[in-house]
Amino acid sequence: MTTTTIEVSEPVASGESARYDVHIGPGVLGGVREHVAGRSAIVVTDSHVRKLHAAKLALDAHVLEIERGEAAKGFATLERVLETFAQRSLDRSSVVVALGGGSIGDLAGLAASLYMRGIECVQCPTTLLAQVDASVGGKTAINLRAGKNLAGTFHPPSAVFADSSALMTLDDEEFRSGLGEVLKSALLAGEDFTSWLELNAAAFPRRDAEVLAETVARSVRLKAAIVARDPRERGERKALNFGHTFAHAIEHVAGFGRVPHGVAVGVGIALAVRAGASSGIAAAHAAFVERVDRLLAALELDGSLATLRRRYGCELPARELIASMRLDKKGRASEPRFVLLEAPGKVRLDQTLPAEVVERVLA
Amino acid sequence: MTTTTIEVSEPVASGESARYDVHIGPGVLGGVREHVAGRSAIVVTDSHVRKLHAAKLALDAHVLEIERGEAAKGFATLERVLETFAQRSLDRSSVVVALGGGSIGDLAGLAASLYMRGIECVQCPTTLLAQVDASVGGKTAINLRAGKNLAGTFHPPSAVFADSSALMTLDDEEFRSGLGEVLKSALLAGEDFTSWLELNAAAFPRRDAEVLAETVARSVRLKAAIVARDPRERGERKALNFGHTFAHAIEHVAGFGRVPHGVAVGVGIALAVRAGASSGIAAAHAAFVERVDRLLAALELDGSLATLRRRYGCELPARELIASMRLDKKGRASEPRFVLLEAPGKVRLDQTLPAEVVERVLA
Repeated sequence: MTTTTIEVSEPVASGESARYDVHIGPGVLGGVREHVAGRSAIVVTDSHVRKLHAAKLALDAHVLEIERGEAAKGFATLERVLETFAQRSLDRSSVVVALGGGSIGDLAGLAASLYMRGIECVQCPTTLLAQVDASVGGKTAINLRAGKNLAGTFHPPSAVFADSSALMTLDDEEFRSGLGEVLKSALLAGEDFTSWLELNAAAFPRRDAEVLAETVARSVRLKAAIVARDPRERGERKALNFGHTFAHAIEHVAGFGRVPHGVAVGVGIALAVRAGASSGIAAAHAAFVERVDRLLAALELDGSLATLRRRYGCELPARELIASMRLDKKGRASEPRFVLLEAPGKVRLDQTLPAEVVERVLA
Repeated sequence: MTTTTIEVSEPVASGESARYDVHIGPGVLGGVREHVAGRSAIVVTDSHVRKLHAAKLALDAHVLEIERGEAAKGFATLERVLETFAQRSLDRSSVVVALGGGSIGDLAGLAASLYMRGIECVQCPTTLLAQVDASVGGKTAINLRAGKNLAGTFHPPSAVFADSSALMTLDDEEFRSGLGEVLKSALLAGEDFTSWLELNAAAFPRRDAEVLAETVARSVRLKAAIVARDPRERGERKALNFGHTFAHAIEHVAGFGRVPHGVAVGVGIALAVRAGASSGIAAAHAAFVERVDRLLAALELDGSLATLRRRYGCELPARELIASMRLDKKGRASEPRFVLLEAPGKVRLDQTLPAEVVERVLA
């Protein structure tokens, strides 16, 4: 199996473009050392990921452990990480190496973007979720009490190392959590990726290495193309929020960290496709809904609020989900906005939905 | 007296330029209302400034009070401000109005840049320090234990309203604090501004309104020209740190908030000019040192560590100042860098100094 390298170009401050490579394949973590070269570095990770993967970096650098999962994405951890950067005398040429899932990438990326008003961050995503989505595109964030990712920056990484072998060490729950974003990428990319996913869906539960690397590469290519055209999410990039208005409300009402993000996204996609069908947007309503349901089932993802409630033992009342969506950062304060699909690859941004459609879909 | 408007253009993300107007003159705070137009706004200020100036905004907006001075520039306040933005349902179109001195501008600007990854901030500087320097150029920051302004972003304001009448309400200490940055601007700008300042220095202690407005306009023009060419401080913008390597060490060793920033900058300029003379950089050493000393005296600023120690009752041992400079964010972790002047307007960036020169200057 070979390594794939995808170049991403994001317009950034000063009118320049941030160009960085995304390296995908088994063993690519070994390349971080050369990227960091003679500069000082710090590895930000959690104790679990550290045991599994830190040695592969072969870096002579301090390793800073933070909390696992969403618990890391708060002010207390951000402050501790920044104070550690200073104690360790990191300077403007230093490199932050974010090793772990999306939460570590979000938190370490935000800390890197704030320290001395911005130092380099290398993203080393170890979960499927982070490899297909979070590690590319430069978004960093922490959570506020009112909602997820409400405080953050745009800070493109200086390189991404998505090591396929890390995906074999994920527990089933973590692995499943990435599949929601895989489905999102395929449906946004269009018929080609969607048909490919239908053909290969059965390979996911057994974690076929070739199929996983190909999935990451296809997802990164889609995201890179979108981000290059719209780095600040003024238009097209909003497409990447497909399924997320519902998903964020689910995560918020259930309590952050209870329902894995990608699983919530899977249900969010099922709901968004139904909402599109209900409001007459999808060209062939019933067939599209059925197709998405079959893909969710093949990927062993929850396809409805009912199965989600059972599996995670949470109530998720429709009224609370609706209230939560009103504060979703993806939309306005009072009127939630949705990304809807007419068909794979045919995206409608900034859609509002009649209250009765939302209520019916959440019923 | 008329109002002056200076247009600033800073290259920012997405290859675009942030263009904003700096309005200078008596009564310009009344223009904020029109700028905010129909959007939701929140005013961030302190209780002291609120009483003096908040009514002049004539805004129907929530007023959020934070701590006065440097005490506001920490994680606890940043968290409280961001949570309040969310509670008040600010959205991407909302406007943060920073009303106060440099600390309020730094903290509110940082909060605005992080909330939903960046909403608009209008800077309404009410101190001389903030009007001549801090409110223009987009730097935002909080302090870490290891040093001042070690965490922050670049987030240009959407407009600046520098109301000259606010300068009449400053106590003597606050007013003096701005004069260090005035002297810095004049020396960096060159012979024209420096000679003008020499002619008009006597007007400062009596706060001549025309002279103050002209000073703010001249300083903003200088800063705007520099920031337009180098928004991210990769080169030329470093000139604005003239006097600041010494000044930050003084503030740090004395304890943040004890010696006012602009007063520390005044002494920092005296030390930097001596350091330049000692290392043979200044063309006419003795005459330049004497000219700067005369200006410091005319502006009623401290011109040496000795007078600073007496006035603020702090020890400021040379050894601690040197140790502090090694962690100054303006230089490397191990080797402090200085901005030195050959003469007014003739700037040398990124200068290192032999240890014995630094020791002699601090002795």
